[in-house]
Amino acid sequence: MAKVDLEKMRHSCSHLMAAAVMELYPKTRFGIGPSIEDGFYYDFDIPDGLSEEDLFKIEEKMRELAEKNLKFEKAETKIDEALKIVKKLGQTYKVELIQDLKKEGVKKVIFYKLGDFVDLCEGPHVRTTKEIGPFKLLSVTGAYWRGSEENPMLTRIYGTCFASKSALEKYLIHREETKKRDHRKLGVELDLFVIDNNIGKGLPLFTPKGNIIRQEILDYERKLEEEAGFLHVWTPHIAKSKLYKLTGHWQHYREMMYAPFGIDEEEYVLKPMNCPHHYAIYSSRQRSYKELPIRITEPGTCYRYEKSGELTGLIRARALTIDDSHILMTEKQIEQESILCIQLVEKMYQAFELKDYYVRLSLNDPSDKIKYIADQKIWDKAGKKLENVLKKQKIKYVVAKGEASFYGPKIDYMVKDSLGREWQMSTLQLDLFMAKRLNLTYIDKNGEKQHPVILHRGLTGSIERTIGFLIEHYGGAFPAWLSPVQAVVIPITDKHNKYAKQIYDTLINSSIRAKLDDRSQTTSAKIRDAEIQRIPYMLVVGDKEVKAKKVNVRTRGEKVLGSMSLEKFLSRIKQDIVKKRQV
Amino acid sequence: MAKVDLEKMRHSCSHLMAAAVMELYPKTRFGIGPSIEDGFYYDFDIPDGLSEEDLFKIEEKMRELAEKNLKFEKAETKIDEALKIVKKLGQTYKVELIQDLKKEGVKKVIFYKLGDFVDLCEGPHVRTTKEIGPFKLLSVTGAYWRGSEENPMLTRIYGTCFASKSALEKYLIHREETKKRDHRKLGVELDLFVIDNNIGKGLPLFTPKGNIIRQEILDYERKLEEEAGFLHVWTPHIAKSKLYKLTGHWQHYREMMYAPFGIDEEEYVLKPMNCPHHYAIYSSRQRSYKELPIRITEPGTCYRYEKSGELTGLIRARALTIDDSHILMTEKQIEQESILCIQLVEKMYQAFELKDYYVRLSLNDPSDKIKYIADQKIWDKAGKKLENVLKKQKIKYVVAKGEASFYGPKIDYMVKDSLGREWQMSTLQLDLFMAKRLNLTYIDKNGEKQHPVILHRGLTGSIERTIGFLIEHYGGAFPAWLSPVQAVVIPITDKHNKYAKQIYDTLINSSIRAKLDDRSQTTSAKIRDAEIQRIPYMLVVGDKEVKAKKVNVRTRGEKVLGSMSLEKFLSRIKQDIVKKRQV
Repeated sequence: MAKVDLEKMRHSCSHLMAAAVMELYPKTRFGIGPSIEDGFYYDFDIPDGLSEEDLFKIEEKMRELAEKNLKFEKAETKIDEALKIVKKLGQTYKVELIQDLKKEGVKKVIFYKLGDFVDLCEGPHVRTTKEIGPFKLLSVTGAYWRGSEENPMLTRIYGTCFASKSALEKYLIHREETKKRDHRKLGVELDLFVIDNNIGKGLPLFTPKGNIIRQEILDYERKLEEEAGFLHVWTPHIAKSKLYKLTGHWQHYREMMYAPFGIDEEEYVLKPMNCPHHYAIYSSRQRSYKELPIRITEPGTCYRYEKSGELTGLIRARALTIDDSHILMTEKQIEQESILCIQLVEKMYQAFELKDYYVRLSLNDPSDKIKYIADQKIWDKAGKKLENVLKKQKIKYVVAKGEASFYGPKIDYMVKDSLGREWQMSTLQLDLFMAKRLNLTYIDKNGEKQHPVILHRGLTGSIERTIGFLIEHYGGAFPAWLSPVQAVVIPITDKHNKYAKQIYDTLINSSIRAKLDDRSQTTSAKIRDAEIQRIPYMLVVGDKEVKAKKVNVRTRGEKVLGSMSLEKFLSRIKQDIVKKRQV
Repeated sequence: MAKVDLEKMRHSCSHLMAAAVMELYPKTRFGIGPSIEDGFYYDFDIPDGLSEEDLFKIEEKMRELAEKNLKFEKAETKIDEALKIVKKLGQTYKVELIQDLKKEGVKKVIFYKLGDFVDLCEGPHVRTTKEIGPFKLLSVTGAYWRGSEENPMLTRIYGTCFASKSALEKYLIHREETKKRDHRKLGVELDLFVIDNNIGKGLPLFTPKGNIIRQEILDYERKLEEEAGFLHVWTPHIAKSKLYKLTGHWQHYREMMYAPFGIDEEEYVLKPMNCPHHYAIYSSRQRSYKELPIRITEPGTCYRYEKSGELTGLIRARALTIDDSHILMTEKQIEQESILCIQLVEKMYQAFELKDYYVRLSLNDPSDKIKYIADQKIWDKAGKKLENVLKKQKIKYVVAKGEASFYGPKIDYMVKDSLGREWQMSTLQLDLFMAKRLNLTYIDKNGEKQHPVILHRGLTGSIERTIGFLIEHYGGAFPAWLSPVQAVVIPITDKHNKYAKQIYDTLINSSIRAKLDDRSQTTSAKIRDAEIQRIPYMLVVGDKEVKAKKVNVRTRGEKVLGSMSLEKFLSRIKQDIVKKRQV
């Protein structure tokens, strides 16, 4: 079945839902009810509101109406006549819509009738309710009329329908899985991070367990970068506002920046990017062509103003630590350095076991003079340079206009997670503007001052976002090298505690993040808890193990590896840890 | 010679200097000229100012006057008479001083006369200039009259004198050494950090070399802490202002905090301490006595408002990264946890090769109600607890009133550097207030809620300050484990470059931070540069080394270790690196 049919069917299903709501709650006033990517919604003004429990009742009523095989009847009406009809029905939101259409000069409008329910609607619709596939109402939420906070809050019901029962079920399972993997939910269950109201929205705090993941990623990246000749620096989190006026952030990026604050008659602001701080290190001494490329790198925490309503746990936060590198080099080095960065990105994806990704070449939108520095010739040149790298490396890519940074085009990595959702991660940005603007220079072979070109590189982009993404990608079951607890030792009864403690001590001394679960609980309860905590290895020890000086090893997901010596287990887990980190 | 005599002599020497200045610059108006810790100064209003070059001339004149064996003649004068005298002399600053004395009700003042120079002065002085020991003028600087920016800027000359020539020389050598070791000077020479005017005062940026030192210290501390059961977290650099109103920072620590800024109608501020962020992690779930002690730790960058005039490179900065731990525990655990922290501190000092330090028990000043939370009973209890730990551990200590934190008494480590200067470093603070104030709790054995007590611990205190301190302590010659470059390979001529490169590659692959100096320079020039950069090991390779497959090893400070195999050198340098880190 083609996609357009599914859209039509879903839109019809939203009318069916509205018809059911009208029967159940006759005082309802209706907003709008479009189809959306995965289904449909309808906004209602229901005097007493609704809760999730009411969805079942509405669904029942929908089925009842659908059984009647009602027709979708279309009628074209003159606009003034239409206005009279909706006024008589008391449908104030529809009145507003028609009045707006009238202002725009529209003469006629279309109504669709379904049983007793009449709706202003352009269609198209299926012919009868029998043509609507299996449906399911999903959730209730609030939504402002026409999206504006100044308008009344309406009740929005989301639902979906599919062409077949199996397609619907597949979707619902996927949706359930997505919910289960929600990093905000898992973040609490696995005790990985905290957002505290006294500290502020969008400002996650990493708990000891969450920080192990954070630190493992940073340590891994540091090693990767050191081997590739990157130079780590550390820079503070604020700077004078005037710095960002020099760089152009103030002009092009102001809305994402925090409010400034005063110190000693100067205005300061939290840094929204690390670039200018890195340039300050570059320009702290006169550079020579012999030093280039200089690869300055830092996991630098930046602060960006994201709207309160758009904040989403770690994935959209106001504090974000960018694994940020700035390569200052000659134009001739663009290709070599881009390839180096691409190699790092691909290595890192192997470590994270990310296989499904593609590359996007993000260019500026020449018509947007606010978002982008205006000099199309430079934009075209930089875009070509990046495109050539991709072509030479035989990397497939898609082009996206209007996705560039304000200072240059970029190569973005779009990664799909285990549920097939797409995430923007690594980025490589070519900047032919900034060195000139800030008068960054090097002395060339002839003793002349030249401006370097700059490659901005985010390895994952944001550590916080990446951790959020990985929580959802792995469903909390991190690979051993990232797991906060890598192995738990479970004595079967108290009398095995002593042996278990020996095993635990050996693991700790072998740098394994181990836990000893010597609570007075049943073995199965302890295993269940370890599964909930997604601990990759469980070492169960009882009489048999004590006697044979072995451990009984299970892995996450109820797989039993069986009895083995501790040495064998150690070599196994170490391989598991090292394998992922040193690809 | 007793200390009081040295003071008298120095004060007399400042008069001698003033007399010399009066002869050389007759239009000079005189401020004040006291003795200070290491010498004396005098503030002058000299119409054309002075430069360092003029000091020699003044010194000559002083010697000339001193030879005359002038007497210090004391005369008591009625205050109105005194006023007439100084007015007649045109000494406006003295007029101001006498007028102030008159306002205070003083009836008589004392003048001291030395040759033609008459000065308002209480004395005491030596009898004649012959009694003034060997002297030396040191520097010229600007200083506001009476220390206020609203007054005129005067010319201050610093000088010193000692009882013997050898004492003076010893002092001058020490002073020269201090200057040479100034971390701001060495910071530039060794390319360790940068302070950039566009970013802001007091906000150091660590360059690649400086960041190696920073990261080595942090890595070392992390390892130390992990082994001791500390849990690392990560927290953002801002919080709502209202958080600091809850904790009391707003009331007791406001003047050290940055100005707040708005986000979404809420007021935020840069964190001046990490404590409240760590408490937020503690209180993110209900804790049980079984979990205690919980040792939360983080190298957290804080921002404190230090006055512009007091900023001193890394040693007094506005951005400071505190290696900060908060141990939340029961009262019974105070001793055990304090000892644990003391052990960490002492281990760390061994790693830094710091041997000369003592402990200070810092208590509150009960009369200072602004600086301290008011509840003397709790203060006394907490002070006693810390004192008992020191007594039980047989640690000698001195007591300092008015040096506590606003929330509790502390054990401070006062460390002497290689020049004998004293630095406050590690700190251990016992806080019996905050858990109650913020309602931090745990469930005790009986299922009752209790407040934990809190031990705040700064391992070095501030990483930035510590690096500044270590630069001066080592005079830039960091031990191998902290050295940005650990070994440099120096081929004698170009034809040894290939062999040198092999050596270099092996070093790099053995995780040694190596450099290859294959410039076309003489060997001695390369060695000199390596000495300037304080590189601990230099491997010189020429014909002999190529043939014998060896390296000729020198260490910093022109010591020659001689020819050895690369394996032997590797084992030596690795031992050197590991020895210091794993004490």
